[in-house]
Amino acid sequence: MSLSFLSECKVKVLNRIDSLLPDTSKIISSMRYSALADSKCIRAGLIFASGKLNNEISNSALIDMATSIELMHTYSLIHDDLPSMDNDHIRRGQPTSHIKFNEATAILTGDALQALAYETIVSSSAINQVQKISSIAALTKACGHQGMILGQQYDLDAEDGNYDDIQKIHELKTGKLIQVAMTMPHLGIEQQSNQLIVLDQIGKDLGLAFQIMDDVLEASSDSNTLGKSNQSDLLNKKLTYVSVFGKQESVNQAKTLSNACIEKLESSFNKQEAADLIELAKFMVTRKS
Amino acid sequence: MSLSFLSECKVKVLNRIDSLLPDTSKIISSMRYSALADSKCIRAGLIFASGKLNNEISNSALIDMATSIELMHTYSLIHDDLPSMDNDHIRRGQPTSHIKFNEATAILTGDALQALAYETIVSSSAINQVQKISSIAALTKACGHQGMILGQQYDLDAEDGNYDDIQKIHELKTGKLIQVAMTMPHLGIEQQSNQLIVLDQIGKDLGLAFQIMDDVLEASSDSNTLGKSNQSDLLNKKLTYVSVFGKQESVNQAKTLSNACIEKLESSFNKQEAADLIELAKFMVTRKS
Repeated sequence: MSLSFLSECKVKVLNRIDSLLPDTSKIISSMRYSALADSKCIRAGLIFASGKLNNEISNSALIDMATSIELMHTYSLIHDDLPSMDNDHIRRGQPTSHIKFNEATAILTGDALQALAYETIVSSSAINQVQKISSIAALTKACGHQGMILGQQYDLDAEDGNYDDIQKIHELKTGKLIQVAMTMPHLGIEQQSNQLIVLDQIGKDLGLAFQIMDDVLEASSDSNTLGKSNQSDLLNKKLTYVSVFGKQESVNQAKTLSNACIEKLESSFNKQEAADLIELAKFMVTRKS
Repeated sequence: MSLSFLSECKVKVLNRIDSLLPDTSKIISSMRYSALADSKCIRAGLIFASGKLNNEISNSALIDMATSIELMHTYSLIHDDLPSMDNDHIRRGQPTSHIKFNEATAILTGDALQALAYETIVSSSAINQVQKISSIAALTKACGHQGMILGQQYDLDAEDGNYDDIQKIHELKTGKLIQVAMTMPHLGIEQQSNQLIVLDQIGKDLGLAFQIMDDVLEASSDSNTLGKSNQSDLLNKKLTYVSVFGKQESVNQAKTLSNACIEKLESSFNKQEAADLIELAKFMVTRKS
C-alpha cells in the first residue's frame, strides 16, 4: 500500500531539500538537521497523490510544492517544540532543534525554513507564474494568523475546553496545511473549480482525522514508536480529542471522517487516478506512528 | 527635510497594516501591538523614495511593498528581542512583545508577521504578476538563510571579531532588507537593469551606514531617546562597529558611505526625482534615534 508510495515521495523531497541547502553554514546545518530527519512525509504524499488527478502538472512542479509544504511543516514543528511552547525534547527520533543546537538557533532555523518554503515555490523553474502566485497566496493564508498560527495560539491558551474548541484548534493548527497540500496541485487552473471544492473539503476532513489519530497515538504509544515525546500533551495539560471524548470514541470519529473522504474520492474521481489518495486516507487513521 | 516625508510614509503604511489586521483574536492584537507601534519607517521611506524613480509603478503598489517590508522588519525585531536572543525589554518605546504578552505568543507573532509580509505582496491588487514573483523572490532571498537570518546567526555566535566579521553581519542582518527596499519598486521591469544595479549597490552601502549609526547611537544615547534598550549590545558582549573601531571612526565610516551614495544618486538619476532618496541617505547618518 501507500507505505512504498510515501517512501518514494520522501526520497524525492529529501533529495530536493538536500539540493536546496548545500551545507555551508551553521544555520544551514541546523535546517538540514530537522528538514532531512526521518519523517512520514504525509503532506508531501498528499501533494503527489492529489497531483495525479491533474494531468497538466509536471512531476518537477509537484516535487517543489511537496518540498515547500514539508519545509513549512518542519518550521512549525521546531517552533512548536520550543521550551516556551510544548518544551519537547525528541522529534523525528532525534533531539529537538533547541536541544541539539540552542534555543536561539532553533528559532532562527524555523524562521529560515518558513522563508525557504516560499522561496522554493517562487523560484521553481517547474511551476508557472499563475500557479506560483496562487500557491503562495494559499500557503500564506493557511500558515499565518488566520490559519496555522491562529490554531497554535488557541492551542497555547486552551487548557480546558469542549468539542468546538478542540475541533477548531485541530482544523487550524494541523488541518490548514494538509488542506493546502491537497489543493495546491490544482490551484491556478481554470475549469476545475468543482474538483477544487471537493478536494478542499476532503483536505479539511482528512486533516482533522489525522490530528485526532495523533492525539490517540500520543495517548497510547511509547515515544520510541512515535519518534517524539509521547507525554507532552499530558504534561502540558493540553486539550486533545482523547481528553474530551476518550480514546475509543476518538478513533471512531477519525475513521468516520476517513471513510467519508474515501467515499467522496471514489464518487468524484477516476478510481485509478485517486488510488493513492484513497490509500493515504486509509493510512492516516490506521498508522501506528 | 525627510522627517515630514517619512511621516507621510508612516501614515500610509500604518493605515494599510490597520486594514490588513482587523482586531479579532489575541494573535492579531499582538501583531498590531508591534506592527503599529511608533517606528521610523525608514525602510518604507526607501520604498516610496526609490519608487519615485519609476514612473510606471502606482502609489498603491508602493504602499503594499512598503507594508510588506515593515511587517518583515517587525517580525525580525520581535524574534531578535526574545530572551534567548538579545533579551531586550523595550522596543519602539514600549515593552517588547514577549514582555507584554509572553514568549510563546511573541514567537508566534513573529511567525505570523513573516507570513503576512509575503501575503501582502502576493494578494495585492496593485502589484502585477511579474512584480509579485520578483518581489517575493527578492524578499525570500534577502530574509532567509542566505540573508537576514544568516546575519542573525553570525551575530549570535560572534562575541569577538574583526572588521570583516562585523561588516558581514551588518550587511546581512540589517543591510539585506534595506537593499531589497531600495530595489523592489524596480524589479520585474525590463530595460532598467543598469538602474537596478546602481540602486542595489546604494542599498548595500546605505544599509551598512544605517547599522553603523545604530551601533553608534546604542553606545551613545539613552534608552528614552532610542525607544529601545541601549545597553543590550554591551550586556550581550556583542561585536559592533564601535567595539571594533571606536565611536568617531565609526561615525566617519558611516558618513563616508552615505556621501558616496549621495554622489551616486546625483550622478545616476534626475536630481528632482532622487531628492527624497538623497534626503534619506543624509538622514540615516544624522539621525538621533
